[in-house]
Amino acid sequence: MKLVSFEADGGQGFGAVEGDVVADLTAAFEGRATGLRGLLAAGLLEEARTTAAGAPRRPLSGLRLLPVIPDPDKIICVGLNYRDHVAETGRTETANPALFGRYAGSQVGHGQPLVRPKVSERFDYEGELAVVIGTEGRHVAEADALKHVAGYSCYNEGSVRDWQLHTTQFLAGKTFAGTGGFGPWLVTTDEIPDPSKLMLETRLNGEVVQHTTTDLLITSVPRLIAYISTILPLLPGDVIVSGTPGGVGAKRNPPLWMQPGDVAEVEISGIGTLRNPVVQEE
Amino acid sequence: MKLVSFEADGGQGFGAVEGDVVADLTAAFEGRATGLRGLLAAGLLEEARTTAAGAPRRPLSGLRLLPVIPDPDKIICVGLNYRDHVAETGRTETANPALFGRYAGSQVGHGQPLVRPKVSERFDYEGELAVVIGTEGRHVAEADALKHVAGYSCYNEGSVRDWQLHTTQFLAGKTFAGTGGFGPWLVTTDEIPDPSKLMLETRLNGEVVQHTTTDLLITSVPRLIAYISTILPLLPGDVIVSGTPGGVGAKRNPPLWMQPGDVAEVEISGIGTLRNPVVQEE
Repeated sequence: MKLVSFEADGGQGFGAVEGDVVADLTAAFEGRATGLRGLLAAGLLEEARTTAAGAPRRPLSGLRLLPVIPDPDKIICVGLNYRDHVAETGRTETANPALFGRYAGSQVGHGQPLVRPKVSERFDYEGELAVVIGTEGRHVAEADALKHVAGYSCYNEGSVRDWQLHTTQFLAGKTFAGTGGFGPWLVTTDEIPDPSKLMLETRLNGEVVQHTTTDLLITSVPRLIAYISTILPLLPGDVIVSGTPGGVGAKRNPPLWMQPGDVAEVEISGIGTLRNPVVQEE
Repeated sequence: MKLVSFEADGGQGFGAVEGDVVADLTAAFEGRATGLRGLLAAGLLEEARTTAAGAPRRPLSGLRLLPVIPDPDKIICVGLNYRDHVAETGRTETANPALFGRYAGSQVGHGQPLVRPKVSERFDYEGELAVVIGTEGRHVAEADALKHVAGYSCYNEGSVRDWQLHTTQFLAGKTFAGTGGFGPWLVTTDEIPDPSKLMLETRLNGEVVQHTTTDLLITSVPRLIAYISTILPLLPGDVIVSGTPGGVGAKRNPPLWMQPGDVAEVEISGIGTLRNPVVQEE
């Protein structure tokens, strides 16, 4: 099942994608679940599947998509999690994953513009696999970790490189408003039983700039879940953005920055393509 | 005005502290504001002041206090923001503040236990001034910054040092469940017009372990607000944890770690004392 979040009467609508139509589930779960995060928190994912059959249809193209989870309790990003990216940065591999945050206000949905801020021209793409948590877990064992996953999506973890390097801590460059593309939808785990068998590709104006397979993650998705849940509980709707492969714009010669008018895409096999135009902050 | 958050029927209650009683504002704002964050977001801080006069009284000692803002959209912590702390870490001062995140699930209120995790004995205190945002702002000028502040509180930014140093990114050691003491209450800006004129002291079992004045912040509160709001909008209820002075346990010889049975206190002049016992994670 592919689940989207979209704007509905100023709030969050959600539904199941079937080709070019969306089975709108918003009304069917009114009072029981607000948004996709609420659906997951209420344990209603399986009910959504059966409800979708009789839900009203809306054309996908007519919807303004929101980030897959617009309001997660946590967005946890992982840095330096592919060897080719570690190498291009000149850093060294660590035994544990490098975690940093991103705030919900930095996210945009599929089709919505990524915003290059006024204060920098060093706006870079980072194609990544996003993991959405389905059920709460603390001290989750690696062997049980994938049971806590609701599904997967594409993420463009847009980075403002000079601000990222203002200090040792990446956060400042990683959470500018309108820099985190998240979509187009959540693909549930029945369609993706193993997140280590996916192809991920980032394209800028149609040109392939990043290409990897997710078996190359240094810290795998199950290990990320085990590590993070040692720190604090993972909650339904939490998002783990698992890291970007080599090929980022900052490490090219000359550097390749995203410019207003560009189109950035992140495609992951079994999920689809997240596409965002780039605009200048006004 | 001193505003507290407390547990009420499984949800968030809030009220104004007057000596050892609390004027319970929860019912008066029902339907208009959920919790203190909701009160700020609805612009009802001044109305709370007048409403408090006629609100029902409850003994402060009978309330289970929550973190001042239990559910902020953002908690933004600042590292290395006092020169004596920069010096003891052997790091160097940077022109911009080192920002990292902390998630809401890591917070505890005044009187509630700080939790030393099972995976580490290197549990350290960090007394800090917390700034709570009152009104939304983006690209806020330094000169206007304090107008966006609702008030101030004490924060014990409890840190799990070995996890903090797993990689270059501090987050892993900074957001363990039950490690962020936040309280006892919010003191509004009419009582603290200038946050650079405060005394901050951290005590472990009554012994002074950190002592500073807030004029020594490398990046001042107005500059922090200007810098962060360049990145993304600050929202009502957002919390900026402004940094800790020298004297942390990790840099003592021998190191001084918080142990189960200890009592940690953070006192700030004009605010009061945040006090938390330390327990072991079960």
